[in-house]
Amino acid sequence: MKIKVLKDILGANEQIAERNRRLLDSNNVFAVNLMSSPGAGKTSLILETIKRLKGKTKIGVIEGDVSSTLDAEMIGKEGVPVIQINTGGECHLDANMLSSALSNMPLKDIELLLIENVGNLICPAEFTLGEHKKVLISSIPEGDDKPFKYPLMFHKADAVLINKIDLLPYLKFDTGGFSQAIKGINAEVEIFQISCATSQGIEQWVSWLLTQMSRRQS
Amino acid sequence: MKIKVLKDILGANEQIAERNRRLLDSNNVFAVNLMSSPGAGKTSLILETIKRLKGKTKIGVIEGDVSSTLDAEMIGKEGVPVIQINTGGECHLDANMLSSALSNMPLKDIELLLIENVGNLICPAEFTLGEHKKVLISSIPEGDDKPFKYPLMFHKADAVLINKIDLLPYLKFDTGGFSQAIKGINAEVEIFQISCATSQGIEQWVSWLLTQMSRRQS
Repeated sequence: MKIKVLKDILGANEQIAERNRRLLDSNNVFAVNLMSSPGAGKTSLILETIKRLKGKTKIGVIEGDVSSTLDAEMIGKEGVPVIQINTGGECHLDANMLSSALSNMPLKDIELLLIENVGNLICPAEFTLGEHKKVLISSIPEGDDKPFKYPLMFHKADAVLINKIDLLPYLKFDTGGFSQAIKGINAEVEIFQISCATSQGIEQWVSWLLTQMSRRQS
Repeated sequence: MKIKVLKDILGANEQIAERNRRLLDSNNVFAVNLMSSPGAGKTSLILETIKRLKGKTKIGVIEGDVSSTLDAEMIGKEGVPVIQINTGGECHLDANMLSSALSNMPLKDIELLLIENVGNLICPAEFTLGEHKKVLISSIPEGDDKPFKYPLMFHKADAVLINKIDLLPYLKFDTGGFSQAIKGINAEVEIFQISCATSQGIEQWVSWLLTQMSRRQS
């Protein structure tokens, strides 16, 4: 008798991710995996995106955190369906966690799914969830050396949002050098400068997002 | 024949950490494990600490990063012994990595060892290295909700440094509520408000550090 052995955790994760992607596609839901350091602005970006797309695009949100439901409560006030995943101690979401969340999400009622990953620049880059696009939020106060320190995350991102651009006058940050470093790792990536505090650049981000959605659906 | 099985990774890590601690103690070296999110100011704090203690305390530094030697190069310019650990993809240092670094560090020539862990608020909290104190740097731009989202890290810290306090005028951050939340998780913790940009609070931090060192040695 042949014994089947699952190749490895990442291999098993890929299979579940593929299933998630098919489920999303069959429901015409476009899913974005939002990743960043703790406090770089994932939740603020989701709130800004909901505000801009209110009445235009039906959004659902999945919140990933080691602990607490703070972000989900904040998102819930916006009147969109939201599910909180608490990973317990895991430092990233995986496809299986997303699969559980999807079975609780009213997929027929949404067009865009924003998935907030756990705040961490390392492990989330290794685990695909079944999303259509990976978006990295990198904020000015974190410093401009991050592409060199966390290359995989920058390599995997389809778009990088440089957030908290309103703090530029108070901090040393070379946006030109930063963008150049990112392009060195990932030539195809889209880069946006944004501020969730002042709404600067949010329109460009949302416009890119809608373009990606319509390309997928056509 | 009895087969010995290592209980688990954390159990094995504890044993190596204990060996590291004995090695440090036998050399009269006091070791501090510095943890934080990416870009919260670990390297800046090390640089400020070296500056304050120049000519008073002999310092060695171990730099932990997934990738790059940027921080070690910066520290090296200060004329202190420094070793870079690149974890490859691991999201935290472990006792075994510290053990390798210690065997390359001139322990006889130093009194204080500052260990910069990988930028991550989750996994580093789970892996003791053999250090005498764990210090968490949490920065204002990250937001004041972090104790609820990363409770283990705040629970394990002997001291929390609230860094980038100079940015308070430009951000929403409730320092009172933040400190209260930390104390709720960890009543014994020391909390300092600092700015590595303006040097505010660095003297209090260094004074606390020296007190801990002298207590350990007496």
